[in-house]
Amino acid sequence: MSQVKEPVTFEGAVCPVPVHLGDTIVLGHGSGGRLMRGLIEGLFLPELDNPVLRAGNDAGRVAVRDDVLLAISTDSHVVWPLFFPGGDIGRLAVCGTVNDVAMLGAEPLYLTASFILEEGLDTGVLHRVVQSMKRAAVEAGVEIIAGDTKVVEKGKADGLYITTAGVGRIYPGVDIGGHRAQPGDLMLLSGPIGDHGIAVLGARGELGFEAKLESDVAPLNHLVRAMLEASPGVHVLRDPTRGGVATALNEIARASGVGIVLEERAIPVRPAVQAACEMLGFDPLFVANEGKLLAAVAPEHAKATLEAMRAQPYGGNAVIIGEVTAEPLGRVLMKTVIGSHRVVDELSGELLPRIC
Amino acid sequence: MSQVKEPVTFEGAVCPVPVHLGDTIVLGHGSGGRLMRGLIEGLFLPELDNPVLRAGNDAGRVAVRDDVLLAISTDSHVVWPLFFPGGDIGRLAVCGTVNDVAMLGAEPLYLTASFILEEGLDTGVLHRVVQSMKRAAVEAGVEIIAGDTKVVEKGKADGLYITTAGVGRIYPGVDIGGHRAQPGDLMLLSGPIGDHGIAVLGARGELGFEAKLESDVAPLNHLVRAMLEASPGVHVLRDPTRGGVATALNEIARASGVGIVLEERAIPVRPAVQAACEMLGFDPLFVANEGKLLAAVAPEHAKATLEAMRAQPYGGNAVIIGEVTAEPLGRVLMKTVIGSHRVVDELSGELLPRIC
Repeated sequence: MSQVKEPVTFEGAVCPVPVHLGDTIVLGHGSGGRLMRGLIEGLFLPELDNPVLRAGNDAGRVAVRDDVLLAISTDSHVVWPLFFPGGDIGRLAVCGTVNDVAMLGAEPLYLTASFILEEGLDTGVLHRVVQSMKRAAVEAGVEIIAGDTKVVEKGKADGLYITTAGVGRIYPGVDIGGHRAQPGDLMLLSGPIGDHGIAVLGARGELGFEAKLESDVAPLNHLVRAMLEASPGVHVLRDPTRGGVATALNEIARASGVGIVLEERAIPVRPAVQAACEMLGFDPLFVANEGKLLAAVAPEHAKATLEAMRAQPYGGNAVIIGEVTAEPLGRVLMKTVIGSHRVVDELSGELLPRIC
Repeated sequence: MSQVKEPVTFEGAVCPVPVHLGDTIVLGHGSGGRLMRGLIEGLFLPELDNPVLRAGNDAGRVAVRDDVLLAISTDSHVVWPLFFPGGDIGRLAVCGTVNDVAMLGAEPLYLTASFILEEGLDTGVLHRVVQSMKRAAVEAGVEIIAGDTKVVEKGKADGLYITTAGVGRIYPGVDIGGHRAQPGDLMLLSGPIGDHGIAVLGARGELGFEAKLESDVAPLNHLVRAMLEASPGVHVLRDPTRGGVATALNEIARASGVGIVLEERAIPVRPAVQAACEMLGFDPLFVANEGKLLAAVAPEHAKATLEAMRAQPYGGNAVIIGEVTAEPLGRVLMKTVIGSHRVVDELSGELLPRIC
C-alpha cells in the first residue's frame, strides 16, 4: 500500500487530528471538527488537491466562461430520524445545498438529488420526503433537474440517504469566501444558535424532557441576496452546520489569517437550547444549525447589512456577535460575560452523529 | 397520508410497473428497468416534474445564461465489491458522472464527490479509492472541486458509498438528447457489451469459473468530442449502464417516438461474457456497461462518425448495430441470426443488484 502524501497544511492552522493508513473510520470523522479536518487534509486533499478545493469554502467557485462564475456544492444527508420537529431529511437535503451555494454569494439555480434507498423502505415515507423536497425547492426558487436512485439490501442503509448537489451563478462582481475576512470587519449572526441539533436530539428521545423546539432548517438564499443588495461590504458568508458556530468561525479565522473576538453576551441562544445544552454538557457554540449564517462585514456597511437581514423572514433576529482582529492569527476568542477571554476551539471528535 | 398523484406518462411507452403508497422498496427499484421507471414516473416525477427532468436524459440540460448551456448530472455508487477487475468504486464514480454529462454533447468540467463512510472502514481502502478517483479525473480532464464526508454507524452502510455530480458545458450549437432519434438514423455502438456486469459478478465469485474479463469502466468524454468534431449528424448519445443496451434503446425509442431495429449478428459480445450469460441465463443486452455508448446518427454521417470512434482508445471496436425506424412506435425489435424478429423489452425487475 502506498504512503499517504504529506498533509496539505494551512498557515495559522490549529492542528487537525492526523490520519494514518490502517486507522479505521470513526463517527467523529463525519462531525465537522478536527477529526474530519484531519481526514480531509491528510487523505482527500493530498490526492485531489486543486486551488478550488484548497480554498475550503462550502462550495467551489469555478468559471464555465471568463464572465460566468458558478458556485457548485454537494452534501450527503444521513440524518436520523428522517423526520424531526421543523423538518425532515428532504427539506434538509435541499436547504443544505442551497445554503452552501448561497454562501459564495451566488443565486442557487439547479439541484441534483441522488437517493440511496434501503430495501424494505415504505414508499409512503419516500413520498413524504420527496414532497418536502419539492416544497423546499419552491421556497428557495431552485429546480431539481437530475436525479438517481440506488437500492441496497436491508441492513446496508438506514431507511434512505439523500445526496444533493447544487449549481448557482455568482452575482456579478461579488467575491465572497472564507479567506476574505479583514481586521475591523464585524461578525454578524442571523439568529439564535443550536436549534437544529437540539431539535434532532429531541426527536431521538435523548433529551428526557419535552423541548418545545423546532429545527431552523431553511433556505437562506433570499436572505443572502437581500444582504448583497443592501451592502457591498460582505466579505465572508458561512452557515454554521456540523461543528456549529465555533467550528465555522475557526475555519474563517484560519482561511483569512485573522483572529475573531466574540462577545459572549451577544450570542443568542433560545432558553430551550440553553437548558438542553446545560443538561447534556454541550456548548451551544458547537451545536449544528441549518438555517443560520455568519457574515464578516466591513464596519461601515454593518448597519445597512444588519437592517437588510432583519427585514427578511430568516434574519429577523440578526445581531452583531463580535469582530475580526489582526491577532491572534487563526484563532477565535470569547470575551465572557465576566470580562475575561477564553479560546474557542473548533469541535474535536464527536458531538452528535448523523445530525445532517 | 396523501395520495400519489397521477403518474406522468409518455406517449408510446411500455407500461412501467406502477408504485403504490405502502409498497416497500425492493432491489429491483434500483436496477434501471421497469420497476425503477415505475418509481420515477409514479413517485418522483409527479412531485418534482419539470421539463428538464421529464426529458429523461442522463443529465439535465439547463441554461445559466442564454448563451451558456450546461449539462448537470448525478449518480450514487453502491457497487459491491468495492474493487473488481478493471476498476473500483472510485473510478466508477468519476466515469459514471463524466459519461452522463458527456452524453448530452457536453465537455465535463467539474465534479463533486460526496462520501458516506461506514464506521470501521479502513482508511487504507478509502485512500486507494480516492487515488483511483484522481487517476480517472485526470484521464477525463475534470477537476473535483467540492466534496462532503458523512459517517454512519457500523451496519448502516457497506464500506462506503460515493455520490458524484458533474457539470459540463454543452458544445455550442450541439443539441443531443434521447428525443432526437429520427427514422433512418443508424444506431452505433462503441464496442462489446456486458463486460462491466460480468466482471463485477466474477469479483463476487458468482461465476463458478475464472473469467478473464475486466470491467470496461472508462471516461467517454474524449470519444464524444471526437465524434462531434467529425460529424454534425449525432442525434442521440446514451451510455447503456444499468439495464444494459436493451433498456437504453427502449428509452430512446420511447423518448423519440420511433422504433429501433437491431441486427443480432452485429452486436459484439466477448466470448467470456457470452459464456457467463449462457451459464446464468442472462441476455447480454440487459447486462450493465460502464464504458460504452450508443449513438443515433444521421445515415449520411454514420461512416465519418464511426471512423472517428474507431480512432479513439474507447471506440476501437465501434460498429453499426441497427437502425431507427418509424414503426413500431416506442419499441425495439431484434432481427435474429435466423432472420426472424423478436421484441427486445427493457429490463423488468432485478438482474444484478449493486452493479454500479
